Amino acid sequence: MSSHHIVREKQEPALIIANGEACSEELLGQLLEWSPYVLVLDHAIHRVLPLGIKIDAWLGDFDHGHDFEAVLAQQHPLEIIHTPDQDKTDLNKAIEFLIERGFPAANIVWATGRRADHAITNLTDLVRYKDQIRLVMLDDHSKIFPLRGTFEKWYAAGTPLSLIPVGTVQGIVTSGLKYNLHHETLTLGYRTGSSNEVAADGFVRITAHTGDLLIMECWD
Amino acid sequence: MSSHHIVREKQEPALIIANGEACSEELLGQLLEWSPYVLVLDHAIHRVLPLGIKIDAWLGDFDHGHDFEAVLAQQHPLEIIHTPDQDKTDLNKAIEFLIERGFPAANIVWATGRRADHAITNLTDLVRYKDQIRLVMLDDHSKIFPLRGTFEKWYAAGTPLSLIPVGTVQGIVTSGLKYNLHHETLTLGYRTGSSNEVAADGFVRITAHTGDLLIMECWD
Repeated sequence: MSSHHIVREKQEPALIIANGEACSEELLGQLLEWSPYVLVLDHAIHRVLPLGIKIDAWLGDFDHGHDFEAVLAQQHPLEIIHTPDQDKTDLNKAIEFLIERGFPAANIVWATGRRADHAITNLTDLVRYKDQIRLVMLDDHSKIFPLRGTFEKWYAAGTPLSLIPVGTVQGIVTSGLKYNLHHETLTLGYRTGSSNEVAADGFVRITAHTGDLLIMECWD
Repeated sequence: MSSHHIVREKQEPALIIANGEACSEELLGQLLEWSPYVLVLDHAIHRVLPLGIKIDAWLGDFDHGHDFEAVLAQQHPLEIIHTPDQDKTDLNKAIEFLIERGFPAANIVWATGRRADHAITNLTDLVRYKDQIRLVMLDDHSKIFPLRGTFEKWYAAGTPLSLIPVGTVQGIVTSGLKYNLHHETLTLGYRTGSSNEVAADGFVRITAHTGDLLIMECWD
């Protein structure tokens, strides 16, 4: 276990480790490189402890019981946050906890794959917090974030980029994509912008008038 | 390879094998037990051929090229359906092909996991066809289908059941669940009915007034 007794100024995004499919050690290693604040959700603790990383907080409703002393014996200090609210998912609670603590940004891993109900809820819940914290969800095939205002980023030609509306998104304008949208509407289940790609080396620009859009960089 | 020269009366659901994460051999074996019509999407063919199952049709835009003769040498007869339309996903095209051929139902596997953009598009596109064909999407953790009219089914107590709105669904009424809904609204990204469960051995009943609801039986 690496010790990192550093003073954090919350400049690095926090890292939430949820309870879906584990990502590659390589991705996890990249995200841990700058010693982020690490928050682990409920049952994931038993899969994270053997990885030997320093955990800062452990959050959940803990409704299936845990051996807290055994966990604390392996991770000390560890803040334990008990959140019994049944109306919110553990991921919701973790994001709200980080907002409350003043974190401006967080990366989220292990939130996709496995149960489809958890995966789709985790993915789409990102939009709910878009004005309060910068969230990026990552797995071995995807980097996902909500559109906030105007999105502008340089990409290499051919980079896959998907626009997924959470519900209906109106007035979408893009430039730099192979299939650009010109004040168009996307509706989940009926017309999405999946499998678009960057037209040429350069900037991609995306805006929308109303609604919640997820931008996804994905690869096979 | 099993040969099954039987006359199909389209009473069994067809089986679509998409190009996401493979499911367990056990699940695939269950779905193949009654010799369904098997339709494989584009690149998945190279993962399906080694499994030694009989494939009836192979559909895709084939935009990355394939050695068609090598495939036909392993699968004969095999109907090859070239669908170059870039506005639809391969899964959309496969479902529309089955509707056109008169199939009343289809099971879909390998459509979740891996790329998040494909997974969420595949999942939510189920609702688009709900009045034309009965679709069920399955993976090792999930069984997913759209609500059509009134849903009624017997479940054992404690069975996890999630209600996921594709967009906004109004006037949802349930009975038999731990957290029942009484003419309530669910909105993806803001309020979903994830992680509900069956209250007691018996029938669960679900209806909705407007909108597209996905019902998900999921397990860890």
